[in-house]
Amino acid sequence: MIILGLDPGLGTTGWGLIRAEGNRLSHLANGRLKTDSTTALPRRLAHLDAMLVALIADHAPESAAVEEVFVNANPQSTLKLGQARGVALCAVARSGIEVGEYAARLVKKAVVGTGAAEKAQVHAMVARLLPGVTIDGPDAADALAVAICHAHHMASARHVPRA
Amino acid sequence: MIILGLDPGLGTTGWGLIRAEGNRLSHLANGRLKTDSTTALPRRLAHLDAMLVALIADHAPESAAVEEVFVNANPQSTLKLGQARGVALCAVARSGIEVGEYAARLVKKAVVGTGAAEKAQVHAMVARLLPGVTIDGPDAADALAVAICHAHHMASARHVPRA
Repeated sequence: MIILGLDPGLGTTGWGLIRAEGNRLSHLANGRLKTDSTTALPRRLAHLDAMLVALIADHAPESAAVEEVFVNANPQSTLKLGQARGVALCAVARSGIEVGEYAARLVKKAVVGTGAAEKAQVHAMVARLLPGVTIDGPDAADALAVAICHAHHMASARHVPRA
Repeated sequence: MIILGLDPGLGTTGWGLIRAEGNRLSHLANGRLKTDSTTALPRRLAHLDAMLVALIADHAPESAAVEEVFVNANPQSTLKLGQARGVALCAVARSGIEVGEYAARLVKKAVVGTGAAEKAQVHAMVARLLPGVTIDGPDAADALAVAICHAHHMASARHVPRA
């Protein structure tokens, strides 16, 4: 099964694609989708949508996962993040793909083994779990981490979280 | 010119369509788009998107407007609103329609004549400006109000706010 992990953001959305066969994971691709901050918000959101639709068409993931949002202390940042996240979840759901949402501590637990792990530990462990892979920065690493978490939950629970 | 006003929300998105010819305004339609709160978030967002795409296909608006967001004190509400708003702005922009964003005080000023007007005054004035129209609740009234504001700004400035 091909799993798409996403770390949505208005400026940069990290993405990672892995293949999960039972307990075996392999890396397919990862990267960043960027929107131009000098463009008006509706066009930026439509650009993000178009890039996600192209990514999905290109790689045909069968399942997707995002982290539950840590609500930022800054309401304007929360609004911006929410707008990008809404577009990302909508683009995936429009393609008929289920989206699992995981709390940050579950992602950390799946990747590092403890829900109290630091970000840097998560990124280092993602790199170790997918040896030889060039990871396109921390947003792509976060996206791969939530994809790995999703794969573990599917392998153990044998069910896809409802989307 | 046909103008679509939107008041986005995850549970209920108000919408209103008016025709503006110079300084003359006429009502075309208004209503509410509702999503099912028992459904998972990605599907709710995709449902909202599908309803907006259908609305745009049905009425072929040439311009659109939304109110700038009042950032809620509750971060979870801000996140929910942001997700729905992102989907709404994206759906309109994907159709190639420019979206004007107006601060609440500009909408109040355009409709009532003062930026300090109460919500109830705005709704009463929308009903008076569009006589004989049945308005489908406060969300649709807010959507009609921002469409009216957009029409006034276009008539006076003779330019569409950049989207």
